[in-house]
Amino acid sequence: MSGQQWILAQRPQGRLRPDIFRLQPQPADEASLAPGEVDVALRLFLCAPTMRNWMDPPGNHLYPSVPIDEAMLSPAGGRITASADPDRPVGADVTCFGRWQSHIRAAGCDTALVPPTRSLVDAMGRFGINPLTAWFGIKRIGQLQAGETLLVSGAAGSVGSIAVQLGRLAGARVVGIAGGPDKCRWLTEVIGTDAAIDYRSENLPAAIAIACPNGVDVFFDNVGGNALDAAVDAMNRLGRIALCGQISGYDGADMRGPANMMRLIYGGITMRGFLVGDFASEWDAARADLKAGYDSGAIVYRDDLREGFEQLPQHFCDLFEGRNNGTLLVMSDRQAREPAR
Amino acid sequence: MSGQQWILAQRPQGRLRPDIFRLQPQPADEASLAPGEVDVALRLFLCAPTMRNWMDPPGNHLYPSVPIDEAMLSPAGGRITASADPDRPVGADVTCFGRWQSHIRAAGCDTALVPPTRSLVDAMGRFGINPLTAWFGIKRIGQLQAGETLLVSGAAGSVGSIAVQLGRLAGARVVGIAGGPDKCRWLTEVIGTDAAIDYRSENLPAAIAIACPNGVDVFFDNVGGNALDAAVDAMNRLGRIALCGQISGYDGADMRGPANMMRLIYGGITMRGFLVGDFASEWDAARADLKAGYDSGAIVYRDDLREGFEQLPQHFCDLFEGRNNGTLLVMSDRQAREPAR
Repeated sequence: MSGQQWILAQRPQGRLRPDIFRLQPQPADEASLAPGEVDVALRLFLCAPTMRNWMDPPGNHLYPSVPIDEAMLSPAGGRITASADPDRPVGADVTCFGRWQSHIRAAGCDTALVPPTRSLVDAMGRFGINPLTAWFGIKRIGQLQAGETLLVSGAAGSVGSIAVQLGRLAGARVVGIAGGPDKCRWLTEVIGTDAAIDYRSENLPAAIAIACPNGVDVFFDNVGGNALDAAVDAMNRLGRIALCGQISGYDGADMRGPANMMRLIYGGITMRGFLVGDFASEWDAARADLKAGYDSGAIVYRDDLREGFEQLPQHFCDLFEGRNNGTLLVMSDRQAREPAR
Repeated sequence: MSGQQWILAQRPQGRLRPDIFRLQPQPADEASLAPGEVDVALRLFLCAPTMRNWMDPPGNHLYPSVPIDEAMLSPAGGRITASADPDRPVGADVTCFGRWQSHIRAAGCDTALVPPTRSLVDAMGRFGINPLTAWFGIKRIGQLQAGETLLVSGAAGSVGSIAVQLGRLAGARVVGIAGGPDKCRWLTEVIGTDAAIDYRSENLPAAIAIACPNGVDVFFDNVGGNALDAAVDAMNRLGRIALCGQISGYDGADMRGPANMMRLIYGGITMRGFLVGDFASEWDAARADLKAGYDSGAIVYRDDLREGFEQLPQHFCDLFEGRNNGTLLVMSDRQAREPAR
């Protein structure tokens, strides 16, 4: 099987640019499959902000580092084309921690089987890691209660928009921070936040004080930096901060923690980082809860589904300009929209 | 009743100096006691680093701010000299959130009765808020388990020295960070840490890597700043950071949070601030556990008991130079060492 791959040609400096990636032919896998292995024709790629971290040089951190001249790492999905894993037959769809390339050989046990009635787009979109991340951040890390106030940064994004809706359904007052009037209008008019704050035109501390008159009990943070500073200053005693991302710092800006550490101490405040993988045993239950919300219309979900393997780096860069509307998925094959059968 | 008081004459700038306080006569309470009130002749004052925060100007923080020209706030204890509270008779000892002054009038319910067989020095020392803070930080916030690695900053201090010993008793590997060879020798030779790091002469990240070959599971932080940065970089997945204090920043230095926020996220790490008051319902149980440790010799406890109300500001400033050896208590009356009966 031949194909193409996008390699990381150089490490990013400052603002992310698509030309640090290079398209090249993907070498074929010559060896025959070892027991338990599968070959997957990749046809769908999830673009998530945290992938920017994986482009950092190797170092003392807990995330992977893509070597220069190797294919970019990415959540991906595709159809099995050859299998030595009896649980994963040819023709089935799987998701995996993949790469920006046409096909991949993997241990079958490192892939997740997609139910045959579900499309890859649904498996990686509305039932994928972004909405699940929102679910665990609100339910397990934030432990949000009815009557509390939830503040969400990056609230119009793929994770944040689900977080705010789960907060509304939990009976909380919900305030979202987003960039620009269109996103803020969408937050209040479509997905039902009690208030929205435009960080590009408003003073964050003052706007939070107005929008959260009873303070903040749970802060779901996708952004870090100034948003985290302002939220900490507004936290109530025994508040919880769910650290989901730090997108404000991914392009090389300062990624320091909050300025007001004493408020964490005197407030008895918990700040906890998390990955959706920490809760794998609860994924099915969370997916069932999300499905009920989608089916009843109580939760609005948006895909930003795009085409073209050749445009992958450009699509990815759009994330950091706020030029996506919902979960950013790039398909190299339109069959990603169809269930395997 | 007449007396004296130390007022905050000006707000500190940079390094704390005793001359920002001024001694003056304390006005007498002219009114008669209201129902429930008590008069207390104060005779013992606890000097704790966090009191430096209370000298900040009023602002958006969760700790009190001493007004200029008012008496300094301080944990204090003394004997009841007049009482309109049937539960708190004249002659009983109480502790309270007091001030640097000779006597105080308070609602009886805002004072804590000292058992008549216990001295004020013991009530505010080995059974006081410093050892209790260590206990809750290790047991409730850190949830330290046998076989884990505990790192403690300010490890030779009043809180830290109890924290490291509770860690040793819990079956953890225990590493302490302290300033100077004498404190480090005391840590390893007297109270039994597995290793000690002298932050004044050693490179913290390198020394932590050597002393904690399996990484850090629980970090008990009294210091913040560089110590917090270095500890975060060494934390294991699902590690816990108990935020007890930020003494490195109290004198106006930068008190920002940790530099490596992404490690908190990818590590699933919990960072939680706490006050001992958050756990008041468990104080008696914690005191019983501490008493068993003191009685058996398993926990070494040190008071740095000093005399002289007139020297209170000077004694307090010693805290920030590391010139105390154990819990810093200043008595204005030697009867503080004797139980009420």
